[in-house]
Parts: sequence; C-alpha cells; structure tokens
Amino acid sequence: MDFDNRPIGVFDSGIGGITVLRELAKAFPHESFIYLGDTARLPYGSKSGDTVRQYSVQNMKFLVSKNVKAIVVACNTASTQVLENSFEGRPVYNVIDPGAALACATTKNKKIAVLATRATISNGAYTKKINKIMPDAQVLTQACPLFVPLAEEAWYEDPVTNLIAFRYLNHLKAAEVDTVVLGCTHYPLLKNAIRKIFGNYVELVDSGEAISKELTQDFDGQLLKRAQQNKSFLTICLTDASEHFENLSNELLCSVMNTQIQFETVSVI
Amino acid sequence: MDFDNRPIGVFDSGIGGITVLRELAKAFPHESFIYLGDTARLPYGSKSGDTVRQYSVQNMKFLVSKNVKAIVVACNTASTQVLENSFEGRPVYNVIDPGAALACATTKNKKIAVLATRATISNGAYTKKINKIMPDAQVLTQACPLFVPLAEEAWYEDPVTNLIAFRYLNHLKAAEVDTVVLGCTHYPLLKNAIRKIFGNYVELVDSGEAISKELTQDFDGQLLKRAQQNKSFLTICLTDASEHFENLSNELLCSVMNTQIQFETVSVI
Repeated sequence: MDFDNRPIGVFDSGIGGITVLRELAKAFPHESFIYLGDTARLPYGSKSGDTVRQYSVQNMKFLVSKNVKAIVVACNTASTQVLENSFEGRPVYNVIDPGAALACATTKNKKIAVLATRATISNGAYTKKINKIMPDAQVLTQACPLFVPLAEEAWYEDPVTNLIAFRYLNHLKAAEVDTVVLGCTHYPLLKNAIRKIFGNYVELVDSGEAISKELTQDFDGQLLKRAQQNKSFLTICLTDASEHFENLSNELLCSVMNTQIQFETVSVI
Repeated sequence: MDFDNRPIGVFDSGIGGITVLRELAKAFPHESFIYLGDTARLPYGSKSGDTVRQYSVQNMKFLVSKNVKAIVVACNTASTQVLENSFEGRPVYNVIDPGAALACATTKNKKIAVLATRATISNGAYTKKINKIMPDAQVLTQACPLFVPLAEEAWYEDPVTNLIAFRYLNHLKAAEVDTVVLGCTHYPLLKNAIRKIFGNYVELVDSGEAISKELTQDFDGQLLKRAQQNKSFLTICLTDASEHFENLSNELLCSVMNTQIQFETVSVI
C-alpha cells in the first residue's frame, strides 16, 4: 500500500474550527494537520457571501501552497460559499453536507432545528441540503450571533450563556424538534448550555463528528491515502497573532494530540 | 472669510463610530461627512496592534482619496495605533486624547475607570494619557468583549445586557470610581445598561461628545475652516455590504441628520 504523509489542511475564521480539528485528530491519530485560523478577518458570520467566498479562496490557496493532500472547510459560513468538491487537485470537504446528512439519519419525527450565524442562516444552505435528502422534513432555523463571542470569551458554563441560550432556543424546544444541528463550528463549545435548554431527548448534531465520519469513509474508499504510522505534526497558522487563541486551542486540543503544536503567524493575501 | 466645503472623513471598524458621527453632525449641521465602516474586517478590538495599524492606514488613504479636509478616527482600538496628528496634509483626530482629557476634567476623587476592547486595554493608551495629565489619578481598566456584539445585536435595553454589564462592572462600582470612560465607540449604545450599574453619581465620558468639543475648538481656532451654510451630504461607505448596518445607522442618525444618507460598498485595499 502506498502512503501519503502530506498533511490535511483545515481552515476556519477563528477558534471554532478547532472543534472540527479535534474530532479529526481523534479519528486519525497518525495524520498531520495544518490548521489555518483567519483571525485577522474574523468573524465570517456577519459578512456578505462575496466577501466570505473571496477569503475562502485565499485560504485554500494558502493551504495548497503548504502541500496539503485534502482541504477541510471547518467553518459553516465559509462552507456555504465553497461549493466545489476539489480545489487545485485536492479534494475539498465542507461541513454542511455531512451535517445535513447526519441530521436526516438521526431525526425520527422529521422536525430539525438548525442553529448558525446570521450569514449561514440567510444563505439557506442547510435547509436546502436537508430537504434534498428528506423533502418532508420540517426545518426551523435560528441565528445565534452572540454564541461566537461567548465561545471566544470561554464562558462555556455560565448563567449568562444559559440565559442567552434560553432566549434563542426556547421556541425551538416548544416546537418539539428532535434533532438540532450545531451549524457553526463554535457552537459545540457551548454544548452543555444548549443541552440544558433541550434536555436529553433531543440529539445534537456536531459538524466535527459528522465530517470525521465522512473522511473515514473516504479513507476506506481509498480516495485519500492514509499516512504511515510515523511522527505526525500539527501546525496552527494564524493571520493575526493571538495569545488568547493559542491558550484556547492548547486547552481544547491537549487531550487528543500527542504532538507539540507549532504556532505561526502568516499572510494569505 | 474663506469657506471649505470639503467633507470631514470619519472611520471605524463598524457601527460604533456612528455614535461619534452623530455627535459631530449635531455640533456641525452644515458640514458634509464621509463615513467609512470597515465592515469586511470588523471587529478591530480582538486584533493585534500591527494589523489594526495596517487597516487604519488603508482607511485613511481611502478617505484622502475622497478629498476630505480632516480625518476623525472614530474607533478607540484604531486610535491606539494612529499616533500622528496629520496624514497626507489633513489633520487627524483620535478619540483617546479628548476622552482622556475630558475624564481628567470631570473626576473629583481621581478614581477613573476605562471600559474598552481587549486590544485597547492591553495597549494601555488611556492609562498613559490620563496619567500624563493627572499623574496621581488611579485608573482601573476593564475589557468588555461582549459589549460590541450586544450593541450590534441592538439589545440596548435588555436583561441579558444588564446581567453582562453587572458581571463586567460591579467591581468598579465597589472601587468607588466617580468617572467612567466609554473607551469604545460602541459602548454609548449601551449607556442605559451601564448607567444602571453605576447609578447617577458617576459621570460617563462619551468619546463622541469629547471629540466634537475638540473639533469645535479647532474650528474656532481656524485650524479647520467651516463649510458654508449650503447643502451638506452624508455618504456611508462600507467595505462589506450590510443591510443590518444600514438599518441600524438610519435608526441612530435619523434624529440628527436633515439630509438623505447615501450608502456605497467600497474597497480600501
């Protein structure tokens, strides 16, 4: 069997994609990763589609220049603007397709809620994808603009976060959805607060878990060749230096990485 | 007397500088304004000094290309990185100098609190300026990262905002400050919530009011020539189109502007 030791490239606007990287690192312990956090231009969720598209293409070019074997768009807002399955010869994985598929596989009563940024919700990508798979599914959407800054503030378990979650989500509980898509990669960091609103009878769909399942299938299907069981690395490239980001990502990744994380400040323009 | 009908240029990362523009429009009803909101790259408050400096210079070059007669840096984070008093022949006004001066003129017990973004606080600009004017002043600082998204969400009068304000500010009240600098141009939008924490015996210093006082002095001192009493205009240029921004700024400016606001999407790179 041939091996391919090139890293997998992952990008997001900020810290959120680390939740996807964490799931990928758990599923593929021998792979190397290059993570690009576009911290100089975050957040993407409040920006227009054209701007998010332009930033995403610059980010993908940067990852290609780092010789990645695949690109994971670990940002839902960017995923609404990256519709191609390959970019300069590398397979591209977005987080929306596997998230929508997993939601459809999970729901029993066909009532699905999607939580995301204003940009992702107004784009309608999740509703379209879910209804393509399951035309009679009822999809309720909710933009939650304060969830990203709450996650960046690391107020994961906090009365303030609980109160804001109640404000955004209580009407969805009342509508009796049985499946909730965390349609922004920051939101798994607030899983406990979201869980408190919905209780245990509702399934939360995490994009990171969904995408790592999809990559597992592709590895098995030989679309991607796995790396050899040798020394892997993780490099986190930021477009704007941020000690706060370094501390948060070290904290989020320490339990799944057996390698030292290298941080670099880069330009993608 | 000669008149100068060129517009005054104002820039901020987003909606916050509109609070400064509102004060300027009240003080100078015959002047025209060009407002640049760098919405494609907001917020500045979480970014590094070098990046904020680079963005600010691009913004000032854009305003000069629009033939402004003066530049107002209506963003505290940008003001920490724009130290020059003139740029390509135009006078430059930052919001920190007049805010610090007004705080010193206001305090009686010499205990001053500064509320601002993480970037402005860690830069230390307010503390340095205040202590230069009043070396024995005690300056307490507090970063309030959730205030900007709360203002952008327009939750001005809201139990959630009150709760977050209490979290950030209660220890400052306990420390008996008598003057509080709203060191981010978004914060005046949350003035009522902030006022609820401190009560009526504490003075809130608003950068917009402070800078319009400074500009009034300069007009009188002939550094700037006033416009003739003729038809003025207001153009708001955004680096990323945003209907949400247009609605908010129309709402904030309708009571002070007697002219129609023109919106344009522009590139500053």
